[in-house]
Amino acid sequence: MATKKFAGPSPYVINTTYPEVDFRHTEYINNATAKKSRTSAAPVVAAIFGLGRAGSIHLSSIIRNPRIILKYIVDDRPEIFTELKSYWKLEDQVVCLTSKNADRVYKDKSVNTVFIASPTYTHHDIVVNAIANNKDVFCEKPIAETIEETRKCYEASKAKGRVLFSAFNRRFDPAYRSLKERARQGEVGHIQILKVTSRDSPLPTINYLSTSGGVFHDCVVHDFDIACWILGELPVRVHATASGLITEVKAIDDFDNIAFLLTYPSGTVAIGDNSRFCAYGYDQRLEVFGNKGMIKVENEKPAHSLESYIGQDGIKLNPIYYSFPSRYKIAYRRELEHFLDVVQYGVPIEVSSWQTLAISKIATAAEESARTGKTVELDWSKDGIPAEYS
Amino acid sequence: MATKKFAGPSPYVINTTYPEVDFRHTEYINNATAKKSRTSAAPVVAAIFGLGRAGSIHLSSIIRNPRIILKYIVDDRPEIFTELKSYWKLEDQVVCLTSKNADRVYKDKSVNTVFIASPTYTHHDIVVNAIANNKDVFCEKPIAETIEETRKCYEASKAKGRVLFSAFNRRFDPAYRSLKERARQGEVGHIQILKVTSRDSPLPTINYLSTSGGVFHDCVVHDFDIACWILGELPVRVHATASGLITEVKAIDDFDNIAFLLTYPSGTVAIGDNSRFCAYGYDQRLEVFGNKGMIKVENEKPAHSLESYIGQDGIKLNPIYYSFPSRYKIAYRRELEHFLDVVQYGVPIEVSSWQTLAISKIATAAEESARTGKTVELDWSKDGIPAEYS
Amino acid sequence: MATKKFAGPSPYVINTTYPEVDFRHTEYINNATAKKSRTSAAPVVAAIFGLGRAGSIHLSSIIRNPRIILKYIVDDRPEIFTELKSYWKLEDQVVCLTSKNADRVYKDKSVNTVFIASPTYTHHDIVVNAIANNKDVFCEKPIAETIEETRKCYEASKAKGRVLFSAFNRRFDPAYRSLKERARQGEVGHIQILKVTSRDSPLPTINYLSTSGGVFHDCVVHDFDIACWILGELPVRVHATASGLITEVKAIDDFDNIAFLLTYPSGTVAIGDNSRFCAYGYDQRLEVFGNKGMIKVENEKPAHSLESYIGQDGIKLNPIYYSFPSRYKIAYRRELEHFLDVVQYGVPIEVSSWQTLAISKIATAAEESARTGKTVELDWSKDGIPAEYS
Amino acid sequence: MATKKFAGPSPYVINTTYPEVDFRHTEYINNATAKKSRTSAAPVVAAIFGLGRAGSIHLSSIIRNPRIILKYIVDDRPEIFTELKSYWKLEDQVVCLTSKNADRVYKDKSVNTVFIASPTYTHHDIVVNAIANNKDVFCEKPIAETIEETRKCYEASKAKGRVLFSAFNRRFDPAYRSLKERARQGEVGHIQILKVTSRDSPLPTINYLSTSGGVFHDCVVHDFDIACWILGELPVRVHATASGLITEVKAIDDFDNIAFLLTYPSGTVAIGDNSRFCAYGYDQRLEVFGNKGMIKVENEKPAHSLESYIGQDGIKLNPIYYSFPSRYKIAYRRELEHFLDVVQYGVPIEVSSWQTLAISKIATAAEESARTGKTVELDWSKDGIPAEYS
Repeated sequence: MATKKFAGPSPYVINTTYPEVDFRHTEYINNATAKKSRTSAAPVVAAIFGLGRAGSIHLSSIIRNPRIILKYIVDDRPEIFTELKSYWKLEDQVVCLTSKNADRVYKDKSVNTVFIASPTYTHHDIVVNAIANNKDVFCEKPIAETIEETRKCYEASKAKGRVLFSAFNRRFDPAYRSLKERARQGEVGHIQILKVTSRDSPLPTINYLSTSGGVFHDCVVHDFDIACWILGELPVRVHATASGLITEVKAIDDFDNIAFLLTYPSGTVAIGDNSRFCAYGYDQRLEVFGNKGMIKVENEKPAHSLESYIGQDGIKLNPIYYSFPSRYKIAYRRELEHFLDVVQYGVPIEVSSWQTLAISKIATAAEESARTGKTVELDWSKDGIPAEYS
Repeated sequence: MATKKFAGPSPYVINTTYPEVDFRHTEYINNATAKKSRTSAAPVVAAIFGLGRAGSIHLSSIIRNPRIILKYIVDDRPEIFTELKSYWKLEDQVVCLTSKNADRVYKDKSVNTVFIASPTYTHHDIVVNAIANNKDVFCEKPIAETIEETRKCYEASKAKGRVLFSAFNRRFDPAYRSLKERARQGEVGHIQILKVTSRDSPLPTINYLSTSGGVFHDCVVHDFDIACWILGELPVRVHATASGLITEVKAIDDFDNIAFLLTYPSGTVAIGDNSRFCAYGYDQRLEVFGNKGMIKVENEKPAHSLESYIGQDGIKLNPIYYSFPSRYKIAYRRELEHFLDVVQYGVPIEVSSWQTLAISKIATAAEESARTGKTVELDWSKDGIPAEYS
Repeated sequence: MATKKFAGPSPYVINTTYPEVDFRHTEYINNATAKKSRTSAAPVVAAIFGLGRAGSIHLSSIIRNPRIILKYIVDDRPEIFTELKSYWKLEDQVVCLTSKNADRVYKDKSVNTVFIASPTYTHHDIVVNAIANNKDVFCEKPIAETIEETRKCYEASKAKGRVLFSAFNRRFDPAYRSLKERARQGEVGHIQILKVTSRDSPLPTINYLSTSGGVFHDCVVHDFDIACWILGELPVRVHATASGLITEVKAIDDFDNIAFLLTYPSGTVAIGDNSRFCAYGYDQRLEVFGNKGMIKVENEKPAHSLESYIGQDGIKLNPIYYSFPSRYKIAYRRELEHFLDVVQYGVPIEVSSWQTLAISKIATAAEESARTGKTVELDWSKDGIPAEYS
Repeated sequence: MATKKFAGPSPYVINTTYPEVDFRHTEYINNATAKKSRTSAAPVVAAIFGLGRAGSIHLSSIIRNPRIILKYIVDDRPEIFTELKSYWKLEDQVVCLTSKNADRVYKDKSVNTVFIASPTYTHHDIVVNAIANNKDVFCEKPIAETIEETRKCYEASKAKGRVLFSAFNRRFDPAYRSLKERARQGEVGHIQILKVTSRDSPLPTINYLSTSGGVFHDCVVHDFDIACWILGELPVRVHATASGLITEVKAIDDFDNIAFLLTYPSGTVAIGDNSRFCAYGYDQRLEVFGNKGMIKVENEKPAHSLESYIGQDGIKLNPIYYSFPSRYKIAYRRELEHFLDVVQYGVPIEVSSWQTLAISKIATAAEESARTGKTVELDWSKDGIPAEYS
């Protein structure tokens, strides 16, 4: 009976609640109580451009979200429209168009929101048209193909008072977000080292890579963004080293294996490695080390609770998620909710224009470093960075 | 350059696909390609009875599922109807009723499916009425309050040719399902020991417990079901030991701390422990041990990739899921898809009538063992068990 | 610079020490400072009987331990003596004998300590002779082949004022020990469920099993001991179910697959499963669940830090330890240190005589339950159990 | 009975052995069988210089190792000799001296081996004297304070035909070693990224740091060594960024927070981060990523099997090892066995002279990069590197 004395009072007299980190339970409670917060506004009326890799993810979230009424789908593969309508049981109110008829969307005053997931080279025009017609915009990265055009898009959105949201989905991942919040509350002290690993899976087609703008602008920007977002600083020096180990990638003068160091004013260093091809899945990791401790995000995986011990071969666990739609499934949903909060309730936007532009500048410097073998110094004094960042 | 020689051919010339276990990727691929399989039938037209613990989970899945058109919600708390419609943006076609007007549902010939998640004592009547009116039925466990009534419900469904599905949600959890499939392919050899742990969180109210039918029939049945489902055998002997350590539970002559052994004809033993209250979350574990190895399912948790190392206190990971809606979120969705496959495509039902009845018989024997302190022998010769089970 | 403000004072002005759980560091500090505590006494002068499975483990610890001077090795395989001396570079002072010359050990007054690791049937006589000649005794379990003989050995040791230590090595494992200490400080509240798993590897020879006294007395006793040691209670009811799934084991009327429930007065249940053969290594696990939480000991493994991710097959970790000498290597060393502390410094002995006898009684009852299929009630009123145990 | 058919033949008719990775079992088997391989030679007769941080670790291994007879201890703290002899029960044959009487060691022809763990500035002279007197030398890193002196020591050892072993202990860690062997067998394909993390604990005293030669030569050399040892390549470009975040460290113009990139001819990049102070223990990690997969070594920790789930705070595991004596305890022992194999059996030495010199050259370049903010190119054409390295 050595432990009976520790039983304490009946659990019926103890008031407890559930741990906040169980976000599925929060969703359940909200649904079970039909809690109205953040859902009382009228649904937005929306169009979506492009149903490719990211577009089909957004479509499935939009269709199932009571905060949105989808009115238009714009895609240049009209042959998929019939199956699409049948698969999703789309009511007649959803109109499928090709881009040459996109004007119908712009002119429809009932549409107040546009989601852009079409090829990169089309972004700029859709953004400009949507904003000109007073629609809020959710746009897959990048907003435009050049920093200058991106800047102009932001100026237009500001002039018209419309939202222009650049989708940096990783920021909305529950694990990354939790790491950031705890770091910003001082749990690890002063962050001295930040490490980010991004290894893509599956290998993108050479076709895709040829028009991607290069791995630094297409892929490594996410790592730069995560680092600066968490640290609340901008780097003063960058060194990158990169190579094209895959013959086909080298042939288009791009890189598939990249490492970089960003040196920050506070003495912090961000270390990153990035690969275009990872044989064991979509490897996404993050770590912050400070003088009080470390927090890290390892890989997530499906059915992570499964362990098998067969013979003497050791213990086997499930592989990590295969690709971004699995790994960032929840991030994509939360990003959408954030965008709706901005549009419907005026919540402050989490991805600001100067951040998007600063990340592009870092990417350009990193590519230069990789191509020259030298370090590159960065000067932010003329970029309109808010004071609390220096 | 010691490893360059191992590089092998370019990844562009290797054909690979993704690992099946990444079920999120499968869903993504299906959505992205609008693959029609299993979705081509006309949507079922449905009513749902009861929006309590399980009901609200089913409602959120039903509303977002293109395979279902919801027509009626029946619940005896009419005061929630307005908020409910607003929260879910329910169109006018969804009618909210109280149970005294349920006849409208039964008489509506367009409704071909009924979901039952109302209190246990109401199940039998709704099942009987729904089947009498030619509707397929998805019913939260148990079908009825006695074995005899349950048997009659199944006979009625058979006579009318309607589906009567008893919702054993755990069978549809990806991890449990994967364990079962691998065990049935012989990975661990002959299963000698099966262990199942179920610890509830949060503690149910005494009100709920008073009408639950006792922990063996309300809760431990899930453990018995999982054990027999995986093993493909029925036990010949049961011993259970149980106590009411929580004063309030003891006061209603129920138990909150239970352990049992089931002895099977092949020499296998199933070991279970079950508790009504678990302070650290909803603990659900399963393990099979055979002469070739072991497979186990540990607990799942949100953002399981997060690890923190602060000071010398050791490493901290996120807590496990708080309760069943989080832990079995995916299982609930898959259970629903299976039911729809049965109803729409005639896929064989996975929870058969004799199984439901056999599990009840085990629960009754286990409770007897717990109350007498003796072992109880079980004879299955007159229960109509299929031959391959003996 | 968002986290620089959290840096706090220089680590040079903060006083810290290391975490106690790092027992390797403690050993290092002791060695580095030549700290005398517990090592100031003169070395004991010892003989060891038997160099089989456990004996060779003890020999390697004894030879390297500055607290012991080894004088005799007694083993009935004289053909190994030459290699043994060469392998260990034994000085001439170590005399190797066969058991027929063991009298030389008993008569040697300089020898004050005897280690017994010879076959079970020889234990009783060596114990009796050693104690009669005023030597302290460290004896591998069991002390003797019957409860009655064991009791007499203890009475002799008490009469002569000599130490008689029964080696329950698992109690000295750092993980098990830590679990116990934390449970006894109330971390999990009242322990409601204790689970212990013991699966042997490799499969013992039939020869060994034939003379082992049966799995309940040879093997499952460890599980009973661990359960009672942690709980500080003795069970009032036992149920065991067991089978001989391996033909050769069944042929000698023994069991290789065992499960049991022990019901304790406080409402606690101990659940155990035990197997003679485990294909993936020596599986040793322990768990306590109370109303405030759970602590568990999973398997230990060599180089547990290694993880490999090759292709899409998932993640592979090293196998668990293969057998008891690996798994309990540290426990064997600590057990020896404890015995030396008892002998040299009068530290209270951790395995008391009544415990050894009580565990035997439980084993006998469990075997009866397994053979009859009934539960067995246990009455402790006449066993001289200390009052704080009831 | 669904799985009984998978039982297969009796385990008694299957021949198996244990997994090689269980090195504790190998040691047990060797001890149990008194296997003579590698132990048949006469013990070496040894002196040890210095009983500080590393010296006390070596002393405890040497004393307990039957392959070595210790004859001299040389240390400049004569006040510790009495306690030392008492603590270790050293026989009279071990003579304790201060360094001013070290000649007695050099002149003693029976001494054939010298272990050096005294302060860095004393290494060179002891090495030179020992070799001049025909003794084999085991020397803690570095051999001498300059590359030039180091080179001369190696030349002397070559001329005299004596072993001069530089102790890079990490190479002998079972996990690191296993990673290397598997990488060299091609498991991960061409290694593209190697990552090494080394964070020291506890913080060394300023006194120690002042005479350490700077963090690049004292600490980061280990990371450079591990990277080149695994990759079998030498880098052509290095970039390092470093800062003194701890005021006291900055004051002596040293660094406590370091990151580096090494670019290799095959396109591989080695990424490292190193810190002088880690609040949660001695963080040592290693990872190799290639086109076929990844292998990594995470941190090891004591009683890693312990998991606690108390309340809703999440899951707590033990902290990682506190410092190098715990973390590399086994590596130190294996390093010693390797040295004895070289000395007694002529096994090829694993740390060759050109490697030691190359690592020093990288450290010098890295420090230059950190101080200038530029990248530094490395030319190996005149360093006598074996051909298979280019």
